[in-house]
Amino acid sequence: MPKNLAQKLIESHLESGDLEPGRPIELRIDQTLTQDATGTMVMLEFEALGLPRVKTELSAQYVDHNLLQTDYKNADDHLFLSSACRKFGLWYSRPGNGVSHPVHMSCFGIPGKTLLGSDSHTCAAGSLGMLAIGAGGLQVALAMAGMPFSVTMPKIMGVKLEGELPPWVSAKDIILEMLRRHSVKGGVNKIIEYYGPGLKNLTAMDRHVIANMGQELGATSTVFPADEAVRAFLRQQQREKDFVELQADDGASYDENESIDLSSLEPLIACPSSPDNVVPVSEVAGRPIYQSYIGSSANPGLRDFVVPARMVKGRQVDDRVSFDINPTSRQLLEEISRTGDLARLLEAGARLHQTGCGGCIGMGQAPASGQISLRTVPRNFPGRSGTKEDQVYLCSPETATVSALRGEITDPRDMDMDYPQFSEPDELPDMRPLLQEPQEIPVEVELVKGPNIQPLPDFDGLPDKLVAPVLLKTGDNVSTDEILPAGAEILPLRSNIPEISRYTFCRLDEQYYDRAMELDGDSYVVGGENYGQGSSREHAAIAPRYLGVRCVIAKSMARIHRRNLINFGVLPLLFENAGDYDLIEQDAELEIDDPVGQLEPGKPVEVKITSSGETIKVRHDLSGEEIETLRLGGLINKTRKEHPDID
Amino acid sequence: MPKNLAQKLIESHLESGDLEPGRPIELRIDQTLTQDATGTMVMLEFEALGLPRVKTELSAQYVDHNLLQTDYKNADDHLFLSSACRKFGLWYSRPGNGVSHPVHMSCFGIPGKTLLGSDSHTCAAGSLGMLAIGAGGLQVALAMAGMPFSVTMPKIMGVKLEGELPPWVSAKDIILEMLRRHSVKGGVNKIIEYYGPGLKNLTAMDRHVIANMGQELGATSTVFPADEAVRAFLRQQQREKDFVELQADDGASYDENESIDLSSLEPLIACPSSPDNVVPVSEVAGRPIYQSYIGSSANPGLRDFVVPARMVKGRQVDDRVSFDINPTSRQLLEEISRTGDLARLLEAGARLHQTGCGGCIGMGQAPASGQISLRTVPRNFPGRSGTKEDQVYLCSPETATVSALRGEITDPRDMDMDYPQFSEPDELPDMRPLLQEPQEIPVEVELVKGPNIQPLPDFDGLPDKLVAPVLLKTGDNVSTDEILPAGAEILPLRSNIPEISRYTFCRLDEQYYDRAMELDGDSYVVGGENYGQGSSREHAAIAPRYLGVRCVIAKSMARIHRRNLINFGVLPLLFENAGDYDLIEQDAELEIDDPVGQLEPGKPVEVKITSSGETIKVRHDLSGEEIETLRLGGLINKTRKEHPDID
Repeated sequence: MPKNLAQKLIESHLESGDLEPGRPIELRIDQTLTQDATGTMVMLEFEALGLPRVKTELSAQYVDHNLLQTDYKNADDHLFLSSACRKFGLWYSRPGNGVSHPVHMSCFGIPGKTLLGSDSHTCAAGSLGMLAIGAGGLQVALAMAGMPFSVTMPKIMGVKLEGELPPWVSAKDIILEMLRRHSVKGGVNKIIEYYGPGLKNLTAMDRHVIANMGQELGATSTVFPADEAVRAFLRQQQREKDFVELQADDGASYDENESIDLSSLEPLIACPSSPDNVVPVSEVAGRPIYQSYIGSSANPGLRDFVVPARMVKGRQVDDRVSFDINPTSRQLLEEISRTGDLARLLEAGARLHQTGCGGCIGMGQAPASGQISLRTVPRNFPGRSGTKEDQVYLCSPETATVSALRGEITDPRDMDMDYPQFSEPDELPDMRPLLQEPQEIPVEVELVKGPNIQPLPDFDGLPDKLVAPVLLKTGDNVSTDEILPAGAEILPLRSNIPEISRYTFCRLDEQYYDRAMELDGDSYVVGGENYGQGSSREHAAIAPRYLGVRCVIAKSMARIHRRNLINFGVLPLLFENAGDYDLIEQDAELEIDDPVGQLEPGKPVEVKITSSGETIKVRHDLSGEEIETLRLGGLINKTRKEHPDID
Repeated sequence: MPKNLAQKLIESHLESGDLEPGRPIELRIDQTLTQDATGTMVMLEFEALGLPRVKTELSAQYVDHNLLQTDYKNADDHLFLSSACRKFGLWYSRPGNGVSHPVHMSCFGIPGKTLLGSDSHTCAAGSLGMLAIGAGGLQVALAMAGMPFSVTMPKIMGVKLEGELPPWVSAKDIILEMLRRHSVKGGVNKIIEYYGPGLKNLTAMDRHVIANMGQELGATSTVFPADEAVRAFLRQQQREKDFVELQADDGASYDENESIDLSSLEPLIACPSSPDNVVPVSEVAGRPIYQSYIGSSANPGLRDFVVPARMVKGRQVDDRVSFDINPTSRQLLEEISRTGDLARLLEAGARLHQTGCGGCIGMGQAPASGQISLRTVPRNFPGRSGTKEDQVYLCSPETATVSALRGEITDPRDMDMDYPQFSEPDELPDMRPLLQEPQEIPVEVELVKGPNIQPLPDFDGLPDKLVAPVLLKTGDNVSTDEILPAGAEILPLRSNIPEISRYTFCRLDEQYYDRAMELDGDSYVVGGENYGQGSSREHAAIAPRYLGVRCVIAKSMARIHRRNLINFGVLPLLFENAGDYDLIEQDAELEIDDPVGQLEPGKPVEVKITSSGETIKVRHDLSGEEIETLRLGGLINKTRKEHPDID
């Protein structure tokens, strides 16, 4: 039977299970990617496993998130990560080298390989025909230890691209169109596979834009074929030898089908505060803006900087607009410096920031109160920018740039300007010499741990009877930015669970931490649809667990967060009847008798609401392996039990 | 009688007084400079004066300090400043344009003019033959209102420069040599005037390095002649028409004399944690470093970036070193981008930061715990970097660069390398088109005040009898960084006195704020030598005053801070006998009867130590105008009384 590309990638790495959607599978992992905000915990976890060295083909650690060193903490983390890479045999990319996803793609991406990353946008590498999946840190640590990755076999959604993009419409508008059609839940438990004649004019970096924000659809991953565009990219990176052609089989089919006629698209924009709140730019044109922001892993390509540079050439951005340029990588910054495009941006009044993730994760660049910020970044969840009640819009570099010139949201087609020509350079400088390479022969290295780097707390298993209050009840689409925010104040605490737990749910309830400390015991959280969407940060599971959360009952749950809860022993349950959500008030006491014992594949779990005496049935979607993990109090305990040799 | 240049500059702007050192004078102010960390308060003060428009020849507001927008506060400040500039008729330089001192020098510096700035390094403009003085914000606000500036007529120290610098020794080593010889108190109540044949090979930007760090000597100002080097600089900035030749008269003499044979100098370095802790680099060579930092107003010139770029060409910095490049200005960043020097730095592994003050004021770039940071910045006061117990060394760009390559402190003469050639370009791009120009005709502008921008509190005058405890006793050389720190956490509160006061003295005593709140009344501070050295921030007077400090008794006091205390009604007294310092313990109760009544020029003040019953005599050095200011409870009250028309 002919297979689509996603099926072929899975099949070639399948360690257990089969290709039937909804069933657990285990995948062999070739490469791992970690960034600093999640990576310190990954290294602490890997250290706890007691292995001398990673067992993957390649593992790489990037420093791109916590770049604002407002005190010793972030700098200490960088030194710790550098020492861990020397000790455990990973590549280490220092601050200033750039954002993990495009740098990894440039330095190490190989069609047909699997990549597991402790960053939700790891899926961006699907642009090269990799099977790239974001996951919680602990699962990445286990993959580094050579263990397979467990995931639910996703459905494959085929998206056929036809036609050619009109001027002023670019890759970002394609993924915004997908978000307009399918919402932030539309990709859950799916791999999105793009194919068709429309691919012809999309470079590998254009595809990165689309694959990256597949995460905003909630998808497990996104894949593109490895075709001539991928070959050209690898040639440009001086790695053509790594090219492998990969396509779906002729006649392959998909579980779901979608198609987009590129020629029909227009400039789109996601309004505050969800990536799927998408309308044509023309619908919101004229609103005055404070900030226009170019960069991030969602628009990381050279063209995403060069096109704006050529648009502003000889012009000046509006006096009131902060036109923020966030270079993606050292390679890109060197190149736009060499071509004169950096000078064009500076002459127009742009403000150049440090290479890295920057304001996308709230690490600086927060907008002023009540002011509109236009960004080419992947997410606009409430407060993620660092400013409460922010007004962040997501759009293409073209839209961001014309709006910076005009001082208000502007459809780029309304600017009397020729669409700048851009063609990719044949060759770019190799970035790998500036990465710290793993030693062939392991050397004796002491891990450098500053005072803020604290070990992961020990957690016990679920109690025999879970009688506890609902300490928080949330609405729909709560993101990990609301469960445990990023931002310049909180990110430096990522290596310190007791300290970072103070910020648990603070965006939703400033008193949550105090209430949890007062309770000083077990608790529940009740959530709505798509609970835990967004980033892969396992801290959004660890910190609530540290404060006593033992069970989350929600209408539906985002893949990575659901698994992070399981990894740290928190029971994820799902309302059988969505209406039962209304039966439970915040502060209500719930009771589950023998929670572990009740868990059997396909069987509901009984939850008693003490106040009303009512008992509701909720379901779970746990695999046998996940039930076992919960039974043992989390994945660390389980791994220790199953692999006494490596502990 | 022949006059030196400092005397000529003063005489040409004298509104009252005469040239006798130690006596009060008043100077007419031609230009003012404000930066954002002090400027928001200046604009609030100017607004309180009720004038429609500044009365200076030119006033310019820069945004260079609070660039890390970790939440809405800094961004709100930028919008506020921009609106204030439109309303009051100032030039506004947006974030990304660069550090105030070199940008002001490039855009607006004119030999022979006076410049008053709410930044202690304003004195850097002495490099062009200006009389440039740093002062507290309120005095700058009054200068903007057209009032003269009161200061003690300083002594003039003439420094004759002879010979030529050897290879690998540069301007920074000259000012470090001055600090080695004269200490951080050596310039108090002095203007330092450089002259002699050694000037020939020092460009205007080299002189900026020396004039800038004149502040670290405690000097009132530093002046250089306006000679051919200054003409060349103005020509390069496309402003040769602004050149005026200015020299000391033939046969002029100085109150004090010093001379330096430049050819005898070697690379020098200031060890932690004072700018005068200077030794030859060779004495501390070999210590491993974590960070090497190029930039700031103390090494702002093109050559300070191009020489490092050409040193690292084809080499790589040590894996463990963060080689931080902080461009001074938009102009400089454009230029090094154009010349390929930026690419050279990036290829060597440098980390490019946002244009502005950056880590110099602790706005990011804090070093890791226990690690050495080499910086070309002007100051290394304890904790100023953002890391407690930091180890910051001050040195030339040459020393910082070789040390980055080696990974340890290195004398640049020990590197087997040719000293890179550099010659200034004939012309650089004019930066003024990217500044917001004052409107010729004032327009109706609403001041944009975010929620963090709070009015200055009202303060009353000194009580009839000041009976209060010594809430803090400090050692020598306490800087304003210890009285009210800068840094990324605290700087965003500069527009909000109640909030920023929480950090008063926190570097010296974490409990100070709590103790002050508990006391909830008047208090004293007892200090050692050179109390209040460092920056011009008036918040270091306002916040203690807000918490109840009514009088500081110290062995000696830094000029700007002393005047800031007076401006906000805090009585600055000086121990007559240094030994009396030992008689007063922290928490002792002191009593001054009729503090205002006792103040007469030249007369001592009696202070009773309640516990011992002992009475000591302390002196003051207050002018009649200053006594009057204190009598009325500060300069705002005094100005309101004397100019009821402008309130």
